[in-house]
Amino acid sequence: MNQTKRYEDIAIGDCATFAKTISESDVYLYAGIVGDFNPMHINAQVAEQGMFEKRVAHGMISAGLISAILGTQLPGPGTVYLGQELSFKAPVYFGDTVTARCEVVEKREDKPIMRLSTVVHKQDGTEVLTGVATVMKKDPAPAQ
Amino acid sequence: MNQTKRYEDIAIGDCATFAKTISESDVYLYAGIVGDFNPMHINAQVAEQGMFEKRVAHGMISAGLISAILGTQLPGPGTVYLGQELSFKAPVYFGDTVTARCEVVEKREDKPIMRLSTVVHKQDGTEVLTGVATVMKKDPAPAQ
Amino acid sequence: MNQTKRYEDIAIGDCATFAKTISESDVYLYAGIVGDFNPMHINAQVAEQGMFEKRVAHGMISAGLISAILGTQLPGPGTVYLGQELSFKAPVYFGDTVTARCEVVEKREDKPIMRLSTVVHKQDGTEVLTGVATVMKKDPAPAQ
Amino acid sequence: MNQTKRYEDIAIGDCATFAKTISESDVYLYAGIVGDFNPMHINAQVAEQGMFEKRVAHGMISAGLISAILGTQLPGPGTVYLGQELSFKAPVYFGDTVTARCEVVEKREDKPIMRLSTVVHKQDGTEVLTGVATVMKKDPAPAQ
Repeated sequence: MNQTKRYEDIAIGDCATFAKTISESDVYLYAGIVGDFNPMHINAQVAEQGMFEKRVAHGMISAGLISAILGTQLPGPGTVYLGQELSFKAPVYFGDTVTARCEVVEKREDKPIMRLSTVVHKQDGTEVLTGVATVMKKDPAPAQ
Repeated sequence: MNQTKRYEDIAIGDCATFAKTISESDVYLYAGIVGDFNPMHINAQVAEQGMFEKRVAHGMISAGLISAILGTQLPGPGTVYLGQELSFKAPVYFGDTVTARCEVVEKREDKPIMRLSTVVHKQDGTEVLTGVATVMKKDPAPAQ
Repeated sequence: MNQTKRYEDIAIGDCATFAKTISESDVYLYAGIVGDFNPMHINAQVAEQGMFEKRVAHGMISAGLISAILGTQLPGPGTVYLGQELSFKAPVYFGDTVTARCEVVEKREDKPIMRLSTVVHKQDGTEVLTGVATVMKKDPAPAQ
Repeated sequence: MNQTKRYEDIAIGDCATFAKTISESDVYLYAGIVGDFNPMHINAQVAEQGMFEKRVAHGMISAGLISAILGTQLPGPGTVYLGQELSFKAPVYFGDTVTARCEVVEKREDKPIMRLSTVVHKQDGTEVLTGVATVMKKDPAPAQ
């Protein structure tokens, strides 16, 4: 989808998705980037005694799939991320396939700012994360 | 050291910080994990024509430093991340040193759930991100 | 939490631990960083004919967990690593959870230099590595 | 050097080298693998106030170059790493080119165990690390 719409052409109800199977290497690399070595993510021995019984992915990885949609699909390049509300609903285990979905729910008339409902679910339909994103769409100046 | 407080020992006003210089490799690996190839992050040619004039880090990387504090320091291992509100305030450039800070602002009496104000700033004091985290702290059962 | 002890406040017998489940991606990334492509680490076909029968992690990864403790917990930030003796005792397989442990065994009076016994064991108690670390602790100057 | 000698063909004085320019990404990935987020490695702001004035590589990365030689060149595949003594002499900055060198200094007659002097120096000749490695060389059984 290298073709992204201009702000005025985006409509309430437009939506886009992005899905990925979350691997152990995703979780381990992410832990190393942000420094989050919470044992529930990187220690199988501790994790199996915890409430999720196995190592789980960082919730922020699922949140990252949302930002991937915003930045590359809807509204796409030119997006400035202003805000995100996140509610974490269920754990993601290594090997789970998660699908993020963003849907435009509100557009301002005075500024190129819109709100999108954001949800991530797993292969079995479980909701992993819900929330709302607020973004500004900077369109390139029209050619003369 | 390795010793994190129990819920009842955490007080309003407790805080913790984590800091890191954000490298190009952080941004590139993160892009690869979540699939966010927005040109503003990984295309220097496009980025220099955009509003930030250089490639910038994903906002969610700074958000990840917050989750690192929550999961490893305050409240530490046993933390279940329930929610996060994020407002992105300023771009982080490659080579910027960002410091995340979490401070307990509210504790529920009925359940081990607390809210923390979360802020990330840069070496020059610029606020990069502000928000509020909601977490549950599962303490291990006391020994009999 | 973010607070590390000054040299004079560290006592013989103080200890700290850090644990991680070692993943295939840990081993592969480490191989790529230091160039150690010994087939026992990255060639399953050769490894199964060797003395360990499966691919094993580099011993230096386990040693790295020790340096993580020294640099972030005990004695923590301000640590200068002077020396390390290592004896490798048993292989670490992909998926093994290893716990490193450092304990202060000697403190010099004339200089802020201490020795720590360093050991790494697996989930079943097997010793993976033993040794002794020598570090200098540079404390920040006291405020006037 | 895919041709590795059998134990009996290795002589006192044999040596091998391996060199690499240490990048920021090497240091950042290594930090993420072993969990060593000592600010001297990943926080430019803190590092410039410390004794080395800039971020430095983890000493164990230089040590890893030694293990790379042992496992791939001398004595090469079939090497079992028994022990290593390390003395860290000088910091390695991002962009420094380090050369590790191993030289056989002792061979046991009763077992295929040898000791090698191990040194790492920088492009300007500064010694970064010195030490001694002890390894066992398991040769494949000779073809009948």
